[in-house]
Amino acid sequence: MEPFLLKELVERSLAEDLSYGDRTTEALFHRPIPAVGEILAKGDLVVAGLDVFQTVFELLDPTIRIEAHLAAGQKAKPGDSIGSVCGDGRLLLKGERTALNFLQRLSGVATLTRRFVDQVAGSGARIVDTRKTTPGLRMLEKEAVRLGGGWNHRFHLGDLVLIKDNHIALAGGVANALKEARASLSHPFKIEVEATALSEVQEAIQGGAEIILLDNMSLPQIKEAVELIRKSAPGVKIEVSGGVRLDNVASIAGCGVDMISVGALTHSAPAVDISLEIKKGRSAVGGLPSA
Amino acid sequence: MEPFLLKELVERSLAEDLSYGDRTTEALFHRPIPAVGEILAKGDLVVAGLDVFQTVFELLDPTIRIEAHLAAGQKAKPGDSIGSVCGDGRLLLKGERTALNFLQRLSGVATLTRRFVDQVAGSGARIVDTRKTTPGLRMLEKEAVRLGGGWNHRFHLGDLVLIKDNHIALAGGVANALKEARASLSHPFKIEVEATALSEVQEAIQGGAEIILLDNMSLPQIKEAVELIRKSAPGVKIEVSGGVRLDNVASIAGCGVDMISVGALTHSAPAVDISLEIKKGRSAVGGLPSA
Amino acid sequence: MEPFLLKELVERSLAEDLSYGDRTTEALFHRPIPAVGEILAKGDLVVAGLDVFQTVFELLDPTIRIEAHLAAGQKAKPGDSIGSVCGDGRLLLKGERTALNFLQRLSGVATLTRRFVDQVAGSGARIVDTRKTTPGLRMLEKEAVRLGGGWNHRFHLGDLVLIKDNHIALAGGVANALKEARASLSHPFKIEVEATALSEVQEAIQGGAEIILLDNMSLPQIKEAVELIRKSAPGVKIEVSGGVRLDNVASIAGCGVDMISVGALTHSAPAVDISLEIKKGRSAVGGLPSA
Amino acid sequence: MEPFLLKELVERSLAEDLSYGDRTTEALFHRPIPAVGEILAKGDLVVAGLDVFQTVFELLDPTIRIEAHLAAGQKAKPGDSIGSVCGDGRLLLKGERTALNFLQRLSGVATLTRRFVDQVAGSGARIVDTRKTTPGLRMLEKEAVRLGGGWNHRFHLGDLVLIKDNHIALAGGVANALKEARASLSHPFKIEVEATALSEVQEAIQGGAEIILLDNMSLPQIKEAVELIRKSAPGVKIEVSGGVRLDNVASIAGCGVDMISVGALTHSAPAVDISLEIKKGRSAVGGLPSA
Amino acid sequence: MEPFLLKELVERSLAEDLSYGDRTTEALFHRPIPAVGEILAKGDLVVAGLDVFQTVFELLDPTIRIEAHLAAGQKAKPGDSIGSVCGDGRLLLKGERTALNFLQRLSGVATLTRRFVDQVAGSGARIVDTRKTTPGLRMLEKEAVRLGGGWNHRFHLGDLVLIKDNHIALAGGVANALKEARASLSHPFKIEVEATALSEVQEAIQGGAEIILLDNMSLPQIKEAVELIRKSAPGVKIEVSGGVRLDNVASIAGCGVDMISVGALTHSAPAVDISLEIKKGRSAVGGLPSA
Amino acid sequence: MEPFLLKELVERSLAEDLSYGDRTTEALFHRPIPAVGEILAKGDLVVAGLDVFQTVFELLDPTIRIEAHLAAGQKAKPGDSIGSVCGDGRLLLKGERTALNFLQRLSGVATLTRRFVDQVAGSGARIVDTRKTTPGLRMLEKEAVRLGGGWNHRFHLGDLVLIKDNHIALAGGVANALKEARASLSHPFKIEVEATALSEVQEAIQGGAEIILLDNMSLPQIKEAVELIRKSAPGVKIEVSGGVRLDNVASIAGCGVDMISVGALTHSAPAVDISLEIKKGRSAVGGLPSA
Repeated sequence: MEPFLLKELVERSLAEDLSYGDRTTEALFHRPIPAVGEILAKGDLVVAGLDVFQTVFELLDPTIRIEAHLAAGQKAKPGDSIGSVCGDGRLLLKGERTALNFLQRLSGVATLTRRFVDQVAGSGARIVDTRKTTPGLRMLEKEAVRLGGGWNHRFHLGDLVLIKDNHIALAGGVANALKEARASLSHPFKIEVEATALSEVQEAIQGGAEIILLDNMSLPQIKEAVELIRKSAPGVKIEVSGGVRLDNVASIAGCGVDMISVGALTHSAPAVDISLEIKKGRSAVGGLPSA
Repeated sequence: MEPFLLKELVERSLAEDLSYGDRTTEALFHRPIPAVGEILAKGDLVVAGLDVFQTVFELLDPTIRIEAHLAAGQKAKPGDSIGSVCGDGRLLLKGERTALNFLQRLSGVATLTRRFVDQVAGSGARIVDTRKTTPGLRMLEKEAVRLGGGWNHRFHLGDLVLIKDNHIALAGGVANALKEARASLSHPFKIEVEATALSEVQEAIQGGAEIILLDNMSLPQIKEAVELIRKSAPGVKIEVSGGVRLDNVASIAGCGVDMISVGALTHSAPAVDISLEIKKGRSAVGGLPSA
Repeated sequence: MEPFLLKELVERSLAEDLSYGDRTTEALFHRPIPAVGEILAKGDLVVAGLDVFQTVFELLDPTIRIEAHLAAGQKAKPGDSIGSVCGDGRLLLKGERTALNFLQRLSGVATLTRRFVDQVAGSGARIVDTRKTTPGLRMLEKEAVRLGGGWNHRFHLGDLVLIKDNHIALAGGVANALKEARASLSHPFKIEVEATALSEVQEAIQGGAEIILLDNMSLPQIKEAVELIRKSAPGVKIEVSGGVRLDNVASIAGCGVDMISVGALTHSAPAVDISLEIKKGRSAVGGLPSA
Repeated sequence: MEPFLLKELVERSLAEDLSYGDRTTEALFHRPIPAVGEILAKGDLVVAGLDVFQTVFELLDPTIRIEAHLAAGQKAKPGDSIGSVCGDGRLLLKGERTALNFLQRLSGVATLTRRFVDQVAGSGARIVDTRKTTPGLRMLEKEAVRLGGGWNHRFHLGDLVLIKDNHIALAGGVANALKEARASLSHPFKIEVEATALSEVQEAIQGGAEIILLDNMSLPQIKEAVELIRKSAPGVKIEVSGGVRLDNVASIAGCGVDMISVGALTHSAPAVDISLEIKKGRSAVGGLPSA
Repeated sequence: MEPFLLKELVERSLAEDLSYGDRTTEALFHRPIPAVGEILAKGDLVVAGLDVFQTVFELLDPTIRIEAHLAAGQKAKPGDSIGSVCGDGRLLLKGERTALNFLQRLSGVATLTRRFVDQVAGSGARIVDTRKTTPGLRMLEKEAVRLGGGWNHRFHLGDLVLIKDNHIALAGGVANALKEARASLSHPFKIEVEATALSEVQEAIQGGAEIILLDNMSLPQIKEAVELIRKSAPGVKIEVSGGVRLDNVASIAGCGVDMISVGALTHSAPAVDISLEIKKGRSAVGGLPSA
Repeated sequence: MEPFLLKELVERSLAEDLSYGDRTTEALFHRPIPAVGEILAKGDLVVAGLDVFQTVFELLDPTIRIEAHLAAGQKAKPGDSIGSVCGDGRLLLKGERTALNFLQRLSGVATLTRRFVDQVAGSGARIVDTRKTTPGLRMLEKEAVRLGGGWNHRFHLGDLVLIKDNHIALAGGVANALKEARASLSHPFKIEVEATALSEVQEAIQGGAEIILLDNMSLPQIKEAVELIRKSAPGVKIEVSGGVRLDNVASIAGCGVDMISVGALTHSAPAVDISLEIKKGRSAVGGLPSA
């Protein structure tokens, strides 16, 4: 996400917490306190969102300094230091919750993605995300998926044409839908079609779909569909969705599909546990003018 | 959340998906299609976010009509119809994902809250949320907590003073912190103090805290603290936080505390499964002018 | 453009003109004046932007009524009535300039597009736009291109990969660039490569480009490139850009290319002449409450 | 335009192109590339919008450095270097199109203005713009007019009173309109009246207009009107509008008028051809930290 | 102020009060309560801001109905009903304070203006405002000044040229400043010059100022300046500013000046006392659907 | 107010004045002029808003330097220098009015607050503000109240429950209202009840109000209420409102109440007189690059 856009998103989030000041910090501290905050992993996780964490504090005070001890996409174990932040302790306290809310959530997405990716390692199948993202955080969550080793599907409804069950119901079948799409779609965009039965797979091939999404099929159905597509339409990409879990994703990958999309990566990833431990003092990285 | 504020939040979320149009719908359909969408629960859940769902469609087209079959806070079983939406099918398709993203996430929060609340039923303890909410969605998630039967803690840093570990570290102890806060805080606001040991509980009582938050204590420690507070400071409210799970929350409640706060309500509630099934046709509720 | 997004754009444009009121109208008229405005074409043109025109007046006064006499995409001759607007004459005066600024500019884009499209009629080549649009008006101008019979290329930098001269310079050649792109691009997106010489066309084919953009080539070069691509990569689409004018576009189309992109459609289309003639009175369409 | 306002406008324009990232650049380049971009004129032009060009890149990366080789308002010939930009090549690629869209359009306005101004050189008549500007870009286009040697008319409807044909139609004639305006207008503001016939010129003089706008008159009519005004109302300024072209503007100026307003300056100025040629390397001006 | 702009301003003001809900109303009332609120004057005042009052409630609930008993600009005595508002009592409670904050402040401005205007009645001098307005409320306060019978001076820095003491200090005197301004100012705009001594008045006349502002002069100085200007520059308008109070404004007007500008109209007008008395019930005007 | 929020507020205020440029400054000065502006008190006042003053100029030009000679909350006498600002004189002229509008208004609030606070010195009663603030400026005005020695009451409707006359009317009495509030309010929030008669005071005590607001009572009534509350509910805080003036506030304080709230602090504080005197030159503090 470009910094000028991230800044706007973070400002809105900070405003949720700070529009009426910080009653606690303002009641307790009346002048700057040199302080250092250590960002500590309290579980196994993949780091994502450190740039957002940094933006939170830069917006509160440009003199605050962040030092990253782990790069985005790296793994952390319980007790690992992810990084540190150094500056006026009052601003560390004001930004702490907002900064952690982003970091814990995005690292949660990256961590869950990595677990799925690890399950299909060596299979040639890619784990991909969906548009089932948190309202307002789509770009950040899609980046966290990439950091976890996943691939991105559509970013928004203006990307490729994806003809799903509800479109098919209103268009009167896969063949009709594909014909309409072909007639009016300009060249930069691809067409993907969802199929829930072998008959729809065939219609999709005949209609010229570039990607076929096998939705909610059983493993035998998936295998049969893959065989059909590879034989009659070798250039077509195959994606699977629906009911994908950590305990069955490897079997699905074993069917020889190209992509497996998992809504849970973004809609149900639990936050990972990360804390910020703040102490008086100055770190080597600087921040807080000496005066 | 007041409608004029909700509208702004929903507009931003819709813009994530629709700023460059809906390539699929625009390629397939070139005139209005009367259609009805059924909102179906696909698991056990508590409904929350139906007003947001409605706002999504009203922003796309004021003539779309929503009918609620279940009220906010009610339970649904798999297969239950939560409501329906009726209007131009093209706009149902455009709004579907954004509307469901809100509904599934907020119902997820309400559902998880209800599970915690059910665990402590009869104990007199309240389940309360935290500020560990999704950036941008705090007000909606806090309402979902209420719909699940929970209570709300702070909405933002400008609410009551809450002196936590990091404040205590910078202020030089509980007693100092409380003294500072008492001196400058105006009358509309309360003071809560976090205590991790019995000694801090005693300092908190002596310093005049109105609420004491027992953080990360073992059950025996909690019991001892409760006994101490009830005896020496009967008006003080007791809250517990840290390490609260569905399988231990009843035991914590059994210690006689007033509130148990659970970050997971908002930071780790999985989305519940809800689908929108769209078909051609008109419903009794109306929408879509006949012309 | 979705209405909720258009509304925001139009509000900003109206604010440019009306933030300090309308000195003239407010000095002259102190109560509502029933009035009708006729939208008159004063040259040959293709209509685009009537929905924006309407939004301008709806934002000023929801009771104003617009009647369209020509549909978007239709041609008008000098003297034709494009539509009419009926309501309080003071608001017609306040919105007139902003509404016409949109209508004249967007119809200008549609009109110029249509002239290019007419030149290549029957050739199988499509006229397509570029990202050389007016800052802030991209979605509207791209719609005007469609209304003029053209096709849209990229809407933004997040659409398909388009490797141009500057990318090639920094990446060290077409082959390298394509290899990099293939390795990291996820499945929903296509790759297009710009080629300025036959050697680059060959690299593009070998690297697996799905679209090849022949940039600033002479007619003989284009013909040679088309022949090469059709023979060795029949599925690849061919686009031409650079130096395309009304007087040479037919010859380019005659080379058998698929698309011809023309920056001038949006960066240099002159506004067409349209006026709003306002008179006292009421029209059949209504507007302005009788009281 | 004050920098804090320009920043907001440029951010909105960049968001059109970069809200979903730059698929191409992100696919090709995974670390910073020191690069220099040369801004080259490819036709005769007058430079305008270099400050906007600079703001585009500063918003993407404050470490990018711009060097201007020509000042705003200066002329460039084909091949002239207008300036250069130096920094991380990835950001040069991301900002290129948006920066050029502004620069080419605004220089287009300045260039066309200069051509009109050159036509009337020595006559004492001023070329002035109108409110027929691009929605959202009024302040920038009016500055480009000044850079081309033109003068600005109204910036918005809250500037001077300008009574035009539609006002006269609703007010019942020039005399009535002027009487109303005189009665309620406060002292900081002037009154201008449009006249399409000599009789209206006389009404305008009698009503105390400070500026008279001769609209769509023939050369003989203009001459007659000028004579009348100079004789009977020597302090009144005379403006001409309607049907002004490069080939007749000198004759109009020859009639002795003070101002000639030309809508085409902003509504139909073609973009001038300017390119950005990017190469690996560092320039003397700096940018891009050495690390 | 155009309604679409007013709406935005009022939304921001409501957000100050309601971003976290209304703790009181939400705790007390759980379903709609038909209610009527009477807007009562509790002192002598001139009404201004009733449209803003109405916008506050329309934004909270479009079904709320407002009835005005007095028009903007009319006088009210203690006990007079200014109007009434009818709808769901919960929304009356939520909007009450914001609506009254606008109404009391703007009526305060109108009331103070009227007192100044009454002092100079019959003198031919106008009371005018300044740019010393409340940040964010300039347009509303300037309208309140008009409703109180005053005239408006500049709305913003882009209106007429007004050369004041600080400009003169930096420009090296009145004559220099006027010469510079004359050379570059386009025809729609006037020039006003501040003079603090007779010598500056003479420079202003010679430099061609259209309005002369006598700043902080004594009554004899004003008289002398008026005499000089009337004699040597009969078309020039004369304004007075500085130290104008209710008890000396009539004497200043008596010197024969055209305008007297008073900063206190907007920077120091006390709020007038207006209350909203809410009762259960429905009014004749309607609101609140019967269901 | 956090700087990132203040910046947004100040930008909106500057836009009111500068959206169309500064006609005067741009006409007079065509290159930077090193200049210093002295901020001079022209009456007795308490300083507030110097940070806003500074933000105004930083937004116009980050190189401008401000030096404070008095701290926020300090008193100034006529002629005292409050601070100085040094930089390009053109930007001093552009920001002058907006910066002073904030400074004069906020210092006005602090000054009036100090006068009330001085009246009750030694009594133990606190002067507190209300929500009768200027729309858009609440946070700044509440800070000015603190700088004047006052305390803040509610910041917004989501703070403590405050049951006032209109709530009581709709809820059917104090007892009912308190019962409802107790049942649904979560633990972080207090309850305050307005009482206009002794019977309501008793209901408030019995209902468990934590603060009782004696509204519009006579001195004898206040004394009686204080006696009753101190005897039967010693922990309850007592606040007085209604008809509080500088000449009676000491008597009210003498009744032994805890808080006295005064709407006039924010709704009717006159602006204090402060001027900015600008001269050519450079100050010791710097600003304006030497080139």
